[in-house]
Amino acid sequence: MRDMPIGVFDSGLGGLTCVKKLRKILPNENIIYFGDTGRVPYGNRSNETIKKYAYQDASFLKSKNVKAIIAACGTVSSVATELESDLDVFYTGVLKPTATKAVSYTKNGKIAVLGTSATIRSGSYEREIKTINPDIEVIVQDCPLFVPLVENGFTNKDNEITKLTVEHYLKNIKFLGADTVILGCTHYPIIKAIIGEYLGMEVKLIDSGSATAYHCADYLREHDLLNSSGVPGKTEYYVSDTEESFRKLAGIFLKEKLGENVFHIDISQFKKITN
Amino acid sequence: MRDMPIGVFDSGLGGLTCVKKLRKILPNENIIYFGDTGRVPYGNRSNETIKKYAYQDASFLKSKNVKAIIAACGTVSSVATELESDLDVFYTGVLKPTATKAVSYTKNGKIAVLGTSATIRSGSYEREIKTINPDIEVIVQDCPLFVPLVENGFTNKDNEITKLTVEHYLKNIKFLGADTVILGCTHYPIIKAIIGEYLGMEVKLIDSGSATAYHCADYLREHDLLNSSGVPGKTEYYVSDTEESFRKLAGIFLKEKLGENVFHIDISQFKKITN
Repeated sequence: MRDMPIGVFDSGLGGLTCVKKLRKILPNENIIYFGDTGRVPYGNRSNETIKKYAYQDASFLKSKNVKAIIAACGTVSSVATELESDLDVFYTGVLKPTATKAVSYTKNGKIAVLGTSATIRSGSYEREIKTINPDIEVIVQDCPLFVPLVENGFTNKDNEITKLTVEHYLKNIKFLGADTVILGCTHYPIIKAIIGEYLGMEVKLIDSGSATAYHCADYLREHDLLNSSGVPGKTEYYVSDTEESFRKLAGIFLKEKLGENVFHIDISQFKKITN
Repeated sequence: MRDMPIGVFDSGLGGLTCVKKLRKILPNENIIYFGDTGRVPYGNRSNETIKKYAYQDASFLKSKNVKAIIAACGTVSSVATELESDLDVFYTGVLKPTATKAVSYTKNGKIAVLGTSATIRSGSYEREIKTINPDIEVIVQDCPLFVPLVENGFTNKDNEITKLTVEHYLKNIKFLGADTVILGCTHYPIIKAIIGEYLGMEVKLIDSGSATAYHCADYLREHDLLNSSGVPGKTEYYVSDTEESFRKLAGIFLKEKLGENVFHIDISQFKKITN
């Protein structure tokens, strides 16, 4: 089982922030990534549709015989919560690892959560944080324009449109004085510099993809499931839009060129999880 | 055949600008609308994926026994050009009617085209306009953030983010002095006031959904296919995300409340066009 790959999925490209961290901390692991680039974004869709898509994504990864599945997507983690009990391999969304990390950081007891509309509507982060420490004040804000801004490359530190959008969404959080801010969507770290500049250096930004990669690594280590081959791991990328369009944009996230390890699949044919 | 409905489809909600016009000019027609709200937007996806989705959308409308099909979507009209010959009912995209109207309006011979990335990449409007009049100068600009801005309600005339985004995309067009600007995506009329204010009153904005509704009406009239029942027509809306999420947002476009005439379908099951 140790030699089996780790499966990671996201609505699109955001989950690559998690893959990048995984490859850094677990260089011997093989990784299978699925990005639903033919149906991205998930964050504005209904819960029913998000759940249907999430089950198809997990079903595809299961077909690849993975030892663990990471939903590196804030929206799926918040909405398709039944996935954990329906899978017979280790599963984690970004929610628990990220909330745990944020609670350990805050000093003034005020944590802000940024996420897609579906994530914020679900109330998931608020529940998770309050379960760990009911005294913490949680401020939530949906930021539906952040994903399109990132996916269209409006990511430069000086981009006036992104800066204005950050100000629009984060004004209230700045006013209320949260000292810890969860980037509850795996796309958001790409504009971390702009968010950080607006909120100020003293505010800690928690990257959900990174926190989740560490959580998965801890689990595999504790359960003696780490790949012990000593050989550098390989990563394969599967997408529901074309390979070509993925290769172009993935560079923004991975800061490297992708080669022949990108494949197209028809995700709509994956219907049920076969454990 | 006259009593059969008109089918209209779009990637999401934009096509409703065409439906609204159709209902105004042809009040006795029954209309079947399909909005692919579970997979919107199309404009950033690859040609292969856009074609696949367009054929599924048209296939669904064919199953509803329509007498005409309108692709009220700039992206589909520009990319899935084979649809016209593959359908045995009247079919039109927005391209030809809109280009024709723009050519009839321009006085200084400079037409600008705004569209999604896929529309602009296809070069469709440029070809269409040059076919009508090769002397016209065509300036093109993709505006990938306009759809997310509209679908997230950043549509108020005074919205600073949308104003800045309009300036970002239209700076060059203003500088080059086009007197006619094609709103080549059916979402764009929703922010027509902001675009118009930036470009100035003297610039004519061409609404592609509206131009296409008139074109379809002309065709039906010329071919004696208009509904002659004298009874007010009914409109049914089909969507690939939930009915509820559609009802909320559709109000922005139709400026009316939708009732029990909204239905959910699984669009991925429609594979082939059966003529």
